[in-house]
Formats: sequence, C-alpha cells, structure tokens
Amino acid sequence: MKKNNNIISQKNLMLKTLVMPSKKNVNGNIFGGWIMSQMDIGGAILAKEISGNKVSTVHVNYITFLQPISSGDLVFCYAKCIKIGNSSMTIQIEMWTKKVSKKNFGAYFCVAKSIFIYVALDLNGKPKNLPNMCII
Amino acid sequence: MKKNNNIISQKNLMLKTLVMPSKKNVNGNIFGGWIMSQMDIGGAILAKEISGNKVSTVHVNYITFLQPISSGDLVFCYAKCIKIGNSSMTIQIEMWTKKVSKKNFGAYFCVAKSIFIYVALDLNGKPKNLPNMCII
Amino acid sequence: MKKNNNIISQKNLMLKTLVMPSKKNVNGNIFGGWIMSQMDIGGAILAKEISGNKVSTVHVNYITFLQPISSGDLVFCYAKCIKIGNSSMTIQIEMWTKKVSKKNFGAYFCVAKSIFIYVALDLNGKPKNLPNMCII
Amino acid sequence: MKKNNNIISQKNLMLKTLVMPSKKNVNGNIFGGWIMSQMDIGGAILAKEISGNKVSTVHVNYITFLQPISSGDLVFCYAKCIKIGNSSMTIQIEMWTKKVSKKNFGAYFCVAKSIFIYVALDLNGKPKNLPNMCII
Amino acid sequence: MKKNNNIISQKNLMLKTLVMPSKKNVNGNIFGGWIMSQMDIGGAILAKEISGNKVSTVHVNYITFLQPISSGDLVFCYAKCIKIGNSSMTIQIEMWTKKVSKKNFGAYFCVAKSIFIYVALDLNGKPKNLPNMCII
Amino acid sequence: MKKNNNIISQKNLMLKTLVMPSKKNVNGNIFGGWIMSQMDIGGAILAKEISGNKVSTVHVNYITFLQPISSGDLVFCYAKCIKIGNSSMTIQIEMWTKKVSKKNFGAYFCVAKSIFIYVALDLNGKPKNLPNMCII
Repeated sequence: MKKNNNIISQKNLMLKTLVMPSKKNVNGNIFGGWIMSQMDIGGAILAKEISGNKVSTVHVNYITFLQPISSGDLVFCYAKCIKIGNSSMTIQIEMWTKKVSKKNFGAYFCVAKSIFIYVALDLNGKPKNLPNMCII
Repeated sequence: MKKNNNIISQKNLMLKTLVMPSKKNVNGNIFGGWIMSQMDIGGAILAKEISGNKVSTVHVNYITFLQPISSGDLVFCYAKCIKIGNSSMTIQIEMWTKKVSKKNFGAYFCVAKSIFIYVALDLNGKPKNLPNMCII
Repeated sequence: MKKNNNIISQKNLMLKTLVMPSKKNVNGNIFGGWIMSQMDIGGAILAKEISGNKVSTVHVNYITFLQPISSGDLVFCYAKCIKIGNSSMTIQIEMWTKKVSKKNFGAYFCVAKSIFIYVALDLNGKPKNLPNMCII
Repeated sequence: MKKNNNIISQKNLMLKTLVMPSKKNVNGNIFGGWIMSQMDIGGAILAKEISGNKVSTVHVNYITFLQPISSGDLVFCYAKCIKIGNSSMTIQIEMWTKKVSKKNFGAYFCVAKSIFIYVALDLNGKPKNLPNMCII
Repeated sequence: MKKNNNIISQKNLMLKTLVMPSKKNVNGNIFGGWIMSQMDIGGAILAKEISGNKVSTVHVNYITFLQPISSGDLVFCYAKCIKIGNSSMTIQIEMWTKKVSKKNFGAYFCVAKSIFIYVALDLNGKPKNLPNMCII
Repeated sequence: MKKNNNIISQKNLMLKTLVMPSKKNVNGNIFGGWIMSQMDIGGAILAKEISGNKVSTVHVNYITFLQPISSGDLVFCYAKCIKIGNSSMTIQIEMWTKKVSKKNFGAYFCVAKSIFIYVALDLNGKPKNLPNMCII
C-alpha cells in the first residue's frame, strides 16, 4: 500500500480531466470501459516519453476497480515505469478521482490500479530495442 | 489453445460491430482503449444475463493483445462464464476480427483474450448473492 | 409475418450491441437516427460479404418503427438478401431488442423493419457487375 | 422535379451544419447513417413546430441517395409538411450540400430525398389528435 | 442592441441544429465549450465563403454568455463580417435558441454574442492576401 | 511575457490529455472549437475549487491562438485566478502542447492564451457571494 501511494507525484501525472455526463453507463456511474481507455492512454504517454517513439499495448497484467467514479468529478491518471526489457516497458498505472461537483467535495481517492506492458515500435511498426536505461 | 477456441460459438457471441474510422489512434490502427471497452461491455452482457440484474466490473485478471484491428473491419466479442462464486462471475472474453474492407478479405482471427470478474448488484448497488447455479 | 420472422437466425445476425445512455433523445428513448444508422451498417456488412468489396447505400424502400428502444438494452440487427441485380443487392433488415436493464428483463421483440438497396463498387467507386449468384 | 425544387426556401431550412471529418466512413465519404440521422432530426424539428409538442418517427416512406457528401462541406436539411392526419404529419425532407473545402467550391446540389411520417405525442407518450390545420 | 439585432437574417444564418442530450454538462444545461465550438464553426463558414479558401481562427475579441441553453432546443448561429483587412476577417457572431421541447415553447432569444477574427490561408497554410472587397 | 510564463506550474495544471485523431478539422489540425472547450473546462475546474460549488462561464475577455495542435500530441491546460469579485472569478488560461508523436519530439510550446470570467452559483443556480479571499 505504501509502495502504491508513492506513484502520486506530479512527475507521474499523465492525464487530468473532468468527466463529462456522456460517459455514464446505465447504473449512472462512469462506464468502466472509459476508465480502462484512460489507463491505456496514460500508460502510453509514459511509454512514448521513455522510448521516444511509437508504442503498442501488448498486455495488461491486471486491473482492479476499487470505487465507482461520478460524472462531473476530476480524474487523474498516474503512471510509473517499474521494469524495462529489450523492447518492453512494464508500467504501473493508477486512476484517482477528486470530487468537485457532488457531496464530499474535495474527497480524493484511488478508483483503479493496474499494470500494463507496452513495446516500443520502429517506423515500420515492428518491435525495436530500447537503449540501455535504468529506472531511477 | 484448443480450450480457448471452443469459445467461438453463436451462443457466446456478445457483440458484433463494424469499426468506424473515428476509433483510430495515431498509428492508424484501432485504439486499444476502444477494444478494452468492447470487452468490458461484452462480458457485462453475459454477466447480466446470468444474474438477471445490474453488475459491476471488479477485476481484470489479464488482457493479451495479439494483433491490431483495422478500421472498416468487423469485430466480434465472445464471452463464456468459467466460474460462479457467491456474488461473482468469472468470464473469459475474446475479441475476433473479420476483414471486410482491405486486403485479406474474409480473414478471421483472434485479436485479444482476457478474463474479467463481475459482481451481481442489488437495487441499492450492493453485491448480492447469486442463486445456486452450475456452468454447463 | 411468418416470412419476416425467419430472418431471425444466427446466420443473419449482422450487429449485436448494448445501447449506451449517450444515444438518448429528449424523450428519454433511443434516438431514431441512431437506429437507422445501425440498420445501414448492418445491411452494408451483408452487402460487403456478398460482393467481396466496397458498397454504397443507394435507396431505402421503407423503414417502419414498431417500438421504442431503451438505453441499457441489447440491440440486434438481422439482414437477409432478398434480390440480387446486375450490381445491386436488395436487403431486408430488422432491428430487435432484448431488455437487460429495466423491468421486463429478457423480453425480446422487433423494433424496426426495413428494406435497403446497396450497389457494389469497384476500386474507383463506380458500380461494378456482381458475379452470377443465387439466393438460397 | 419542379415540385421537389420548391422545398428550397429559408422557411423550410431545418438544419445547416458543417460536416466534421469524424463522420467519415471507410470509403472516405460521409457515413450514410449520419445523413439519415440528420434527416430524422430535420423532419422532427418541423413536426414539433407543427404539433407544439413531442413527436415520434413512425415510418420512412423512402430515402434516395443521389450523391456522396465530403467531409468539410456544408449540409442543409429542408423539410416541408405535405399531409396532416389525425395525429400524423407526412414530411418531405431533402439534404443538400454546398462545397466549401475542396475543388468545385460553391457547388450546391441535392444529396438525398425522402418522406418521413411522424406522430404527435401527449405528455404520456401516447399519440394525440392534432388540431384542425391546413397546409398552405 | 438595435445594431446587434440586425444580424438576425436568413443571409447571416450559418448553423441551425437541435441540441442533443449528450452535450449536457453536470449542471444539466448545455456545456459552454460546445457553444463556443459552434460559434467557431459558424464564423469559419462565413470566412470560407468570403475568402473562397481555407481559414484559421486567430483571435476571439470577446464572448458574452447571456442565458443557458437546454437540451432538446434549437440553436441558431448568425455571423456577419464587420471588417476586412489584408488577410483577416473580423466576424460578429451570435447564438440564439428557440425552445421546442420544454415549457415556453417557441420562445426565441440570444444566448451568446462574440467577435472572432479569422485569416485566409493559401494551400501551404500561410496567410494570403484577400482581394479588394467592401462590406455592404 | 515573463508574467504569462509563471502560469506554468504543477499547481496550475488543470487538464492534461492526449489529442485523439477524431478531433481533427478539415485542415488536418485540431479543431479550434475543441481547444476552446478544453480552456472552458480547465478554467471551470479552478473556479469550482475556489468557490467550492457550481460555476457558470459568463464572459471570455479574449482568446489568442498562437500555433496549431497536431493529433497525437499532449495538451496541457494551465489556469490561474487573477481577480476575485463578489461572485465572479477572473481566470487566466493557457494551453500548451508537447509533441510526442511526430517530428520535433519533446518540443513544448504555448498554443493559446485567454482570460475567462466565471460566477459562483448557489444550489438554485443563482449567483452567490464568495467568502472574502485573497489571491496569493
């Protein structure tokens, strides 16, 4: 838990957005598919910044949904690279929400956690080797 | 592999759709987040049919992306329940594509595999027990 | 009526999808234009599979709307070719809904019927002759 | 033909919009389903103005597609009531385009014609009688 | 005020559309960003018709929001060129709404006023001189 | 200029997102209306955090567009409150882009600047007085 919390830093903030009502599902909460899409985009931003090029999502290790998101609230996507392979990047991704439009104004909590794996692509769309790097 | 293939039956077909160009990402292929959204919807349809009520996605065990999808092709989502708990349903989900607009017309192959877990909800949005069931 | 009903077979299933709340009109039901769009896509899928190439919608003989669709329900598009001309394909299309999120869970009924005509196009976008075919 | 042309007047203009690239289909032209949606909305605006209340689309007599629409061009929807029944309104609808972003700048032509039937609804969503009216 | 009102003429009508519920913000009214988007499109249509070519928005002098818009109502965008420079066009833009789906049926009023400046572009996307023109 | 630059701090970051290709206009760049929408949302987030309640956009003092945005790049919205009135908040807003998918990888520059005014609303949607505050 302690380990997960240290993902919350400005350096790791990949996306920040306000959830519009058009993303609601039939239950009235935000559609889970939209949350997964945002995780995929957030992780891809970090993977592109590491590789300096196009990337492709190849695997999701897991996603855990902890709380529903309400429309009109803020959503944050944090991502942190936890392993670099020959051409792959393993990225820990968390979605957080901050309530700004309903009761509990200001409440801030984690709504979903996951690990995604991306590969770096060359200009022909084939996996390419990453330069030697370390994760500091 | 043999085991995975037997998911392909009309009984398990949850979604079938044509991919519009507006779902493209910057690489020109279909955005991975859209594919995950379709998986989530396809699994939720089956979970609703099993529980007869609202459901919520609680966990994704894994997603593997095997091939890119092109805009203008058909996409199929197959889902099969592989385990039923007190209130949870574990569902194997596969996305397949059939090419209908570019070269390789008629080619049909799996583009992504996954396992999602859903819980049945009562009218107040709390997990509710499922009746005794078996998976045939 | 009997004749219309035999369109309901897995072979004729062109689209199957869950209706998201963002497709609602001001009355709270699903916007009629969205239903017509789905009919057009469903018929075009069959026309592409028959012609093996691009197609264009040239005429709608009629559309009858029988019942409203509610958001959160499943929608099915069935299509069946009823006439093949030199380059045209006349396709009977029906939309059905299955209730999965509101009262009457499981109810399954036809919401719209129509006949659309498509023409096969060559690579330059001009109508092209179809090979000799018969409709079995 | 002469009869159809007199639909083109400012009084009959129901919609005017610029077509954004996100409405393209795989052929690169504007998706036919989007055009049908605009026709349905355009006719519904006129039906609402006649009945002073909610309306529902019950039938499309025919739609003929004459020309493709390109993204970036202007689209106009004209509608004219040609028959009023107890609770129904029969409305002639035409879509025209004006090219503003590609070659043939300023060209203005009809892209689709149709007749739609709407019924007036009361507050409970049931058909209601229209007051005595004549079409001038 | 008198001066502003004379923008309301069919000649100046750039857009007319029905506001779908998917444009609602969390307050239940139509999202202000959507209104600004429609103003930008409406002004760009006029600027394209004046320059006969591509245009780019370079400046917004001001926008004043006077009233909220409700979903299901009609929206009109009027635009009038008030100044032509070497390559720039200064355009007065107003958004009006007509209520067709809620109480106050038929009420028609201005919801936003603004002035936008566009520049004419040549085929390489560089500003190009406009021919000598006067604004009548 | 110096003054404008100090808006760029993590504290002022209201939105961060990746621009999807579906936001492209006919020129191939990102549609100006989408950029204005993001500015409106970004400013509204800050206004809500200041007032602790609903807000409404009442005026845009100006918007200047400096550079086009390309699809696939990152977009940042920074906002800073520069004046607080009885119920109004005057907010300076800037949009920046960081290139991550085309040439000039990593380039980071301002694409649009503006000042928006919001008012705080009470639960009935009427303007309400803000508590005494100072801007530090």
